[in-house]
Amino acid sequence: MAGREIQHVTIIGVGLLGGSLGLAVRRRYPGVRIAGVGRREISLDTARKVGCIDTAHLDARDAVAQSDLVVLATPVGAFEGYLKDIKPLLRHGVLVTDVGSTKARVVRAAERILGPGGPFVGSHPMAGNENKGPAYATADLFADALCIVTPTGKTPPAKVRRVERFWKDLGMRTMRMTPAAHDRAVARVSHLPHVLSGLLMLLPSDGDLGVAATGLSDMTRLSGGDPEVWRDIMLTNRKAIIQSLDKLRSSMHHLRGLLDAGDARGIERFFAKAKTRRDSTIAK
Amino acid sequence: MAGREIQHVTIIGVGLLGGSLGLAVRRRYPGVRIAGVGRREISLDTARKVGCIDTAHLDARDAVAQSDLVVLATPVGAFEGYLKDIKPLLRHGVLVTDVGSTKARVVRAAERILGPGGPFVGSHPMAGNENKGPAYATADLFADALCIVTPTGKTPPAKVRRVERFWKDLGMRTMRMTPAAHDRAVARVSHLPHVLSGLLMLLPSDGDLGVAATGLSDMTRLSGGDPEVWRDIMLTNRKAIIQSLDKLRSSMHHLRGLLDAGDARGIERFFAKAKTRRDSTIAK
Repeated sequence: MAGREIQHVTIIGVGLLGGSLGLAVRRRYPGVRIAGVGRREISLDTARKVGCIDTAHLDARDAVAQSDLVVLATPVGAFEGYLKDIKPLLRHGVLVTDVGSTKARVVRAAERILGPGGPFVGSHPMAGNENKGPAYATADLFADALCIVTPTGKTPPAKVRRVERFWKDLGMRTMRMTPAAHDRAVARVSHLPHVLSGLLMLLPSDGDLGVAATGLSDMTRLSGGDPEVWRDIMLTNRKAIIQSLDKLRSSMHHLRGLLDAGDARGIERFFAKAKTRRDSTIAK
Repeated sequence: MAGREIQHVTIIGVGLLGGSLGLAVRRRYPGVRIAGVGRREISLDTARKVGCIDTAHLDARDAVAQSDLVVLATPVGAFEGYLKDIKPLLRHGVLVTDVGSTKARVVRAAERILGPGGPFVGSHPMAGNENKGPAYATADLFADALCIVTPTGKTPPAKVRRVERFWKDLGMRTMRMTPAAHDRAVARVSHLPHVLSGLLMLLPSDGDLGVAATGLSDMTRLSGGDPEVWRDIMLTNRKAIIQSLDKLRSSMHHLRGLLDAGDARGIERFFAKAKTRRDSTIAK
């Protein structure tokens, strides 16, 4: 999607991601008009003051008629309702995408509601932090991060290229995956870590927290995320997350065995393997 | 321990912690002489070049005779051997402490070897990062962090005050705990998170790692730590770590049940509880 093509954008959900998207879109396409949709006037007011959106709407149906791009940026559980609302009002040639962290259910619902071969292409820009709300929006949130685009066999290739062009325009790298492969992979590298972050935050006693240092702080940063967003991620990727939990339980069980046996070599080998893998991948 | 009292310090183990300790001690007590003990000449050479130590020794017995303070800073599994080596050479009035991450076994061994009421007071300065070796040493590593001091009923109160004075001189806050209470608390806020960091690093496939973002990077930072150090921590705090693993397994099982049932309210409540706790403690 070349810069000149985008003139009207609707962003549904003006939290950290939606708000940051507004700022990034405006920087990339200076003349663009951005309509923002939200549930609460206070968020919309903040988003307008911060410059994320030009017009504010409590009803998505008032926002989309002129748009050539609509982006869903609410918790994923709200997508279906919005898609049903906006369907009759979408203009011809519109592109609809999202920023949701799960894809199989989202894409299935969008194809059912908007029609296969229709305007929807699923996206998961892997950006964000633990802050909440448009007050924290930043035009750089997406820069240099990865966006996974999840077409199906029914998605028109031209739409896929347009959505990839859009994310690249905002400075992202893109990668294509099937919705199901996406969900399995992010369950392991994102959703499971998020669950563990919450569990580790709740495990110590109040007294224990008095001696917590940077280790626990790092390990629990994710647990500061928005509970509603993460509830919806869990509900829409249950199967893959449960599989990851079961895999983790089994590796915990193995490690517990090494500890119980006082197996010095096995324990050291475990830590060495993890370190080697991190040093050669994430830390690089 | 007033600054003027410390004239000779021996640091056994010149890695990141021992090396940083040398730099911090030298900054605080400008005229001090620091003897460094290590297993490998290359580490000792680096430590001397970086300014962590004045003299380098492969045998601890050559280093301690003049010291009024000896600090053990190797992996904890090596402490016993060093304590036996240095015992006959310690001068009258010496203070011996350590930087080990587990305390019950360490303190028990030190009291057995050096005598109860003897020169040893256990310490756990909660500082460090994933770097290894004296090349990464920094005089600020301990500043503003917490040091847990773990006297027993047999430790002379004057020695406890001296060791607390020492850590405070380096800019640390101090807190007293029994060795057993220390080990239980840090199992939950440090050792268990470290184990999980390693397990989460090993769980994804190579392909999954291609879509990993900041979340996994945060959650696996600890897994970059020194395998030998963490092997010894596991071996010397097995019981408390196993108890923490079992507690985590049980909370994972509960959460798995919520996921399996698609319990939206229960899942949201879990994330909200974790977020509230983090926001009101660690994030403050």
